[in-house]
Amino acid sequence: MSDLSYPKSKTNKVNRLGERGKYDCKTVHSIIASSPVLHVSFTPSPEEFPVILPMIGKLGSFENPSADLSEPLDLYLHGYVSSRIMNLARKQDSSLKVCVCATKVDGLVLSLTPNSHSMNYRSSIIFGTASLVTELEEKIYAMKLITDGVLKGRYENTRVPPDGAEMASTQILRVSVESASAKVRAGEPGDYDKDLKREELLDTVWTGVIPMYTTYGEPQPSHYNKVKEVPEYISTYIKDTGDAEKEYAVAAITMDEAGAA
Amino acid sequence: MSDLSYPKSKTNKVNRLGERGKYDCKTVHSIIASSPVLHVSFTPSPEEFPVILPMIGKLGSFENPSADLSEPLDLYLHGYVSSRIMNLARKQDSSLKVCVCATKVDGLVLSLTPNSHSMNYRSSIIFGTASLVTELEEKIYAMKLITDGVLKGRYENTRVPPDGAEMASTQILRVSVESASAKVRAGEPGDYDKDLKREELLDTVWTGVIPMYTTYGEPQPSHYNKVKEVPEYISTYIKDTGDAEKEYAVAAITMDEAGAA
Repeated sequence: MSDLSYPKSKTNKVNRLGERGKYDCKTVHSIIASSPVLHVSFTPSPEEFPVILPMIGKLGSFENPSADLSEPLDLYLHGYVSSRIMNLARKQDSSLKVCVCATKVDGLVLSLTPNSHSMNYRSSIIFGTASLVTELEEKIYAMKLITDGVLKGRYENTRVPPDGAEMASTQILRVSVESASAKVRAGEPGDYDKDLKREELLDTVWTGVIPMYTTYGEPQPSHYNKVKEVPEYISTYIKDTGDAEKEYAVAAITMDEAGAA
Repeated sequence: MSDLSYPKSKTNKVNRLGERGKYDCKTVHSIIASSPVLHVSFTPSPEEFPVILPMIGKLGSFENPSADLSEPLDLYLHGYVSSRIMNLARKQDSSLKVCVCATKVDGLVLSLTPNSHSMNYRSSIIFGTASLVTELEEKIYAMKLITDGVLKGRYENTRVPPDGAEMASTQILRVSVESASAKVRAGEPGDYDKDLKREELLDTVWTGVIPMYTTYGEPQPSHYNKVKEVPEYISTYIKDTGDAEKEYAVAAITMDEAGAA
């Protein structure tokens, strides 16, 4: 077995409920890859509040474009020239420390007592340094990666490549990943023995899991759309992605607590 | 009109696309209140990476329990005695600066060119100082707030109140909100005039919005559950919440860009 993993360190180690921690690239990267939005945190200065920005980003490797999610990858984030994080990355000369987190909630876990309630979820966290992508070729690579990451096949089905003005107004941050980990909770509720022995509780409190997942609705054409049918790459993508989300949320209920089938 | 708003400052001002910024308590708080998971960021020390934790939290006021989402509120976060953020809050003597962010993705916005693609979303960000709740009464208030915030009516339908051991192993962080704002994107795609004039583009590229929303699946009883029917407060909650999510995502398509109907 040659699955690549992030080494455990003080930075990425899952302390609380360590058995739920995962360090292999495939698990960590898959959660990031399937999240429509990422939360990116940075600290403007030691006196200020940390800041979280919701951003769109996807994992890839410009040097090794055929690399898959089980291999080392960079994270490309999409943003705007004038935004605060872009200005900081520019100023700090490639050394802006960021933390990126993606979380998917798969279900509400309802137990006998409030304190043992939980959620089934998958969460990944990446620590790395962000720098601006300056090479045009890498910027175009990242634009395609991000556009197709949001909806597979979309890039080549639009007006491409982006022109000079578009590339100038778009900035891409490349996060070199220094450390990362994931945390997964799955399975049934877990209750204390003291409560499981109380018949009157078991007779009155419903316990179980309510699966939760993201669904795509009917595509709504814009007022200037002239393409009559929704293209197949779109309908296939939203059906497959929606089905996979639902399947995982339901399957998670019968996994063990750490997410093993 | 007496709607309370957070004052704009350097910390909370929405710079990029400022017309999408919202500062009224009701908008900012509603997004936080309807998000199953919050992303909480803190900086362990100036030399270290910022950290993001996914946490469960709800807004409320122990002093003024009847306050609604349009009024000033504290944010209560649920955690564990031994966790890193709890230890930091304890050490830093009530002065741990945190940033809390909640984001709901309402749709994929597909336009003619990759650069003008977007998402419909609602995002709130709160800046504040986190401190440990030490009073038992306030801790129980927060446990009820959080349990009912995740599933309305759940607290009183479980074995309550939590006993001494349970209260000792659970920690609650209270975030005093210093500043906050929200950012909302809704509506159709927006394309450049230069592209809208090109008939061959309009004839080949499908443009529009694919709504996205969270759905609840069929509740699955635990292996020790003895309550035959899913109680009505549960089935009503998941139906109403799921319907509201879907309705908003679809309605957002016909709103203007800043989310006005």
